[in-house]
Amino acid sequence: MTSTAYTSRVFPLETMDVPGGTETILRGGRHLFPLLPQAFAGVRRIGVLGWGPQGRAQALNLRDSLTGTDITVTVGLRPGSASAADARANGFTEEDGTLGEWLAVAADSDLLILLIADAALAAHHQEIFAALKPGAVIGLSHGFLLGHLRETGGEFPPGHGVIAVCPKGMGDSVRRLYRQGEEINGAGINSSYAVHADPDGRAVDLALGWSVALGSPYTFRTTLAGEYLSDIVGERAILLGAVHGIVESLYTRARLAGDAPVTAYEKACENITGPIARTISHTGLRAVREELNPDGQDVFDRAYTATYGPAREIVAEIYDEVADGTELRSVILAEQRLGSRPMSAIGGSPMWSVSDEVHARRGARDLPVDPFTAGVFVATMTAQVDEFAERGHAWSEIVNESVIEAVDSLLPYMHARNVAHMVDNCSRTARLGARRWGPRFQSAYEQIAYPAAELPADQTLLTAFTTHPVHDALSAATKLRPSVDIAVS
Amino acid sequence: MTSTAYTSRVFPLETMDVPGGTETILRGGRHLFPLLPQAFAGVRRIGVLGWGPQGRAQALNLRDSLTGTDITVTVGLRPGSASAADARANGFTEEDGTLGEWLAVAADSDLLILLIADAALAAHHQEIFAALKPGAVIGLSHGFLLGHLRETGGEFPPGHGVIAVCPKGMGDSVRRLYRQGEEINGAGINSSYAVHADPDGRAVDLALGWSVALGSPYTFRTTLAGEYLSDIVGERAILLGAVHGIVESLYTRARLAGDAPVTAYEKACENITGPIARTISHTGLRAVREELNPDGQDVFDRAYTATYGPAREIVAEIYDEVADGTELRSVILAEQRLGSRPMSAIGGSPMWSVSDEVHARRGARDLPVDPFTAGVFVATMTAQVDEFAERGHAWSEIVNESVIEAVDSLLPYMHARNVAHMVDNCSRTARLGARRWGPRFQSAYEQIAYPAAELPADQTLLTAFTTHPVHDALSAATKLRPSVDIAVS
Repeated sequence: MTSTAYTSRVFPLETMDVPGGTETILRGGRHLFPLLPQAFAGVRRIGVLGWGPQGRAQALNLRDSLTGTDITVTVGLRPGSASAADARANGFTEEDGTLGEWLAVAADSDLLILLIADAALAAHHQEIFAALKPGAVIGLSHGFLLGHLRETGGEFPPGHGVIAVCPKGMGDSVRRLYRQGEEINGAGINSSYAVHADPDGRAVDLALGWSVALGSPYTFRTTLAGEYLSDIVGERAILLGAVHGIVESLYTRARLAGDAPVTAYEKACENITGPIARTISHTGLRAVREELNPDGQDVFDRAYTATYGPAREIVAEIYDEVADGTELRSVILAEQRLGSRPMSAIGGSPMWSVSDEVHARRGARDLPVDPFTAGVFVATMTAQVDEFAERGHAWSEIVNESVIEAVDSLLPYMHARNVAHMVDNCSRTARLGARRWGPRFQSAYEQIAYPAAELPADQTLLTAFTTHPVHDALSAATKLRPSVDIAVS
Repeated sequence: MTSTAYTSRVFPLETMDVPGGTETILRGGRHLFPLLPQAFAGVRRIGVLGWGPQGRAQALNLRDSLTGTDITVTVGLRPGSASAADARANGFTEEDGTLGEWLAVAADSDLLILLIADAALAAHHQEIFAALKPGAVIGLSHGFLLGHLRETGGEFPPGHGVIAVCPKGMGDSVRRLYRQGEEINGAGINSSYAVHADPDGRAVDLALGWSVALGSPYTFRTTLAGEYLSDIVGERAILLGAVHGIVESLYTRARLAGDAPVTAYEKACENITGPIARTISHTGLRAVREELNPDGQDVFDRAYTATYGPAREIVAEIYDEVADGTELRSVILAEQRLGSRPMSAIGGSPMWSVSDEVHARRGARDLPVDPFTAGVFVATMTAQVDEFAERGHAWSEIVNESVIEAVDSLLPYMHARNVAHMVDNCSRTARLGARRWGPRFQSAYEQIAYPAAELPADQTLLTAFTTHPVHDALSAATKLRPSVDIAVS
């Protein structure tokens, strides 16, 4: 599906072995910053629309990386935006021309990066397109707009390059790891890039330059459609939606077995965001199982093989509905409905009331991996990997969207806050998706998977796991960045 | 939205008071059977396509009611259909021309009633339409085909009447209560009727005649779109989807509080399908609360007011997605996916393993209404009533689709079998909808409603319930039929 081979006139590329072939990747790093002016040839003014987590992080990283060049970064906001104060506090000001009204900034940019919320993009993209100067390049960090245009019969304005650089992590991590990169070269959040329209042949190097300037340890190629699908499906599955469903169902299971609330929370949520995420991040997926003792491995195996089928069913359903546009329509409907009926928060669920107590107990001891929890979580992650592989996504995208983004960005964030905080505070599109699909995982696991985990493990599924091509793909991807612990304050 | 006033050249009509006005209704009964030939003027041959629960029930009821007239009823089946044997066992045979291949039957009918499964209708309606003889009337018992045609840009064939008579209950009940009607005049399942196309002015009386011949105690008017919306939304909410979510969440709640499985099942499932359904059916919604002692009423009130908001949110979301076509698209996608990945059954959930034990305990004592369960269930029911009222449905349709069909048909069936059996065995469209939305109710109730039920009851919501117009609408509808206990063997 995705052609992952490409060439660059500016950057040195590498070939990475992946199951079934190779992918071309760009290994990032600050030593490449002197090449940025070449990559940005033809671009003197970069406009960043939006000052949400991504907008803020990208504007700051780009400005820092382009220090000493004559390329400027200007932030464009809606009139009266509440974000203006923080932008000014970070050195983007009207006085020096680096902060302005968004349509004015759009009209003045050679590369215009659209980092406003999906709903705003849906509502205003036509005005923004109309403001562009001839030859300006449109930059996206998310495939949503493509999905929206397809649903509504719209299109990108002809004659303008359309590129995407999509950091595989939250805006906070994109900035924080970039700063860590001042000490550890190569620290950062990986990105995918895509070229959707390239009227003058500049697009690849411009996208790669943008990604390098963001601090991406490695950049891999995708398509806007592939990005959209893997991202929107991922946030409804292992990145967020399924995590919520998993922790609620495991919490209940533990409580029904007689565990006190704190113990149940540790078995469910804390285990996933803490030791399981850490093990996968440092040592990979197979290590989660290998580091268990034989009894633990038996529990893992039965939980894994009981969960895999139900997980795969749901991921397939999510994928179909995202690919079909159905999921997007429900997001748009929800936007309309939410005007009059705001979404209720989930943070009131009983399990979240114990999270403070659990956080206080941290550091007193190392929480061991719970084998049942691990089996359930790893099965869900593997189900998503398999579904993406079946649908033809590139291996870089599969491992980033199904493993790395979870264990390096989202789960550590949830470890510091909690899962409910994340579900109640992430992007509207992600939030709606998680609320829609989290309960599907929860109920399928409670009603089908956990009862089936009493049975002996299915050896075929287990062998498929232990010999899975994803382990090599993950190792290859992991080699390309230093092992960084994301410090979340 | 719905014009509920109409006239008949054949049947005596009545006016029923409903909140905000009146509705014209037809009170049924066997004493009207002599008028059937008039109502069916122009129709000598009725074809019933399909021998599922509805097809079987309607074919049998029509044949019995039209005994002694020269109007024949013929069943049409797909070649090689497994249903042929049962149809023959019930007297529909090739030999006497009352059983045949479906397209041949379609070509030979003056009124062709389409009671095949939604997926088959979606796949084959064009062939069936093409087979019709000039002037033949198309009969439906479900608005699905209208939704499908709208989604796909198709249309009904011009020049043919299109009518619907939609029994508000399962096929089994339609036949069983008709038989009970041999003793108790007026026993039966209510129906709505709609006229979608009427090229020659016959449609109203033909539809009313069909409904009378089915044994409908009362027939009320709707539109095909209104029928479709209330039916598809209803089965995802109080008729099936929400029931499943409610019982799973209440079962877990009781188990977490320390109840043994049998006790928990009695509080959750048994309570709803047994005493709560019976009370509503015999005495109405308000009686459920009024028959509780003061402590019980306090528990009811808090459960009711905590549940109403989350329930209403979800029903509104379901409605939007059904009305928008999004839900239908997901059903179609699921059909495609289910070819290779069959749906897993939910009957393995832990709660269902105790249902046999609970059934065995019946009769030993009268299970009292559990006030918390009652508050949750009645709140969900009222939320659906309110959403339908806000969307402009006629009161007859509201009470039938939100109350009567549940307490007179579906819940008694679930009482005899169990809820899981129903979810795993009803129509494909209903099954998919229940599996999609049941978990939403479950998780919202567990995470938002039940924690909030600790708080004092919201008096505004309570007053809205006790003074609700639905109580009068329900009384008016209930007066129109004898109080029958549906014997489910």
